[in-house]
Amino acid sequence: MEPCLFCKIVAGEEPAEKVAETANFIVIKNKYPKAPVHLLVIDKMHHEKSKTISGKYNTTISGKFASCSRASYWDDIIATSYFAIQKFGLDKTGYKLVVNGAGYNHFEHEHLHIMGGTKKEPGGET
Amino acid sequence: MEPCLFCKIVAGEEPAEKVAETANFIVIKNKYPKAPVHLLVIDKMHHEKSKTISGKYNTTISGKFASCSRASYWDDIIATSYFAIQKFGLDKTGYKLVVNGAGYNHFEHEHLHIMGGTKKEPGGET
Repeated sequence: MEPCLFCKIVAGEEPAEKVAETANFIVIKNKYPKAPVHLLVIDKMHHEKSKTISGKYNTTISGKFASCSRASYWDDIIATSYFAIQKFGLDKTGYKLVVNGAGYNHFEHEHLHIMGGTKKEPGGET
Repeated sequence: MEPCLFCKIVAGEEPAEKVAETANFIVIKNKYPKAPVHLLVIDKMHHEKSKTISGKYNTTISGKFASCSRASYWDDIIATSYFAIQKFGLDKTGYKLVVNGAGYNHFEHEHLHIMGGTKKEPGGET
């Protein structure tokens, strides 16, 4: 079985332009961009989308919240996304976050798209 | 100043077809759909997108996690979305979650789009 492409990227076994990194996620430039800025926020672990969407997985929390048995997977991915949004100035010009699932998803390894860099919304107005 | 449209919908002062509701969010059908299924997950409170994206707001937690000072805004919105995704069978056929911000956003009151009901990804492949 072919190893997961995103797992290979995380492991550095597949080339990718990494633009940001937080404890649980990396952000890379999409090799096949659909917008002038098209980034992918990728889970460092192979958490499957069908499970992350249902709230099965949580991330590890430390410090102040370490005594809580619950951590937030989606707050974590959004915090990472916001870091990248600011880095590329999209908080000034516009950003679109996209999560595809089930029939619309090409990689089961959880990831989120950040798109921007155009005056009009990429992919048409939502 | 004109009151916020989404605040009026939440208050029942503006008609909308509500299809789901959780503690902190409602889900309605978009009046101007861009896909056969186009739902809006709307915060019951007027939390501004520019602040929710930066992690400023958290939701209220109860029960097991009540002792934690941190709750998850985005886990909550995703859990609500997943409820609606299942209700419309999009977990079988495909769903696209979209969050627009800054220049691409038309309503500052936080909301998330759920799109589906087509074989191909609405708005083109991401």
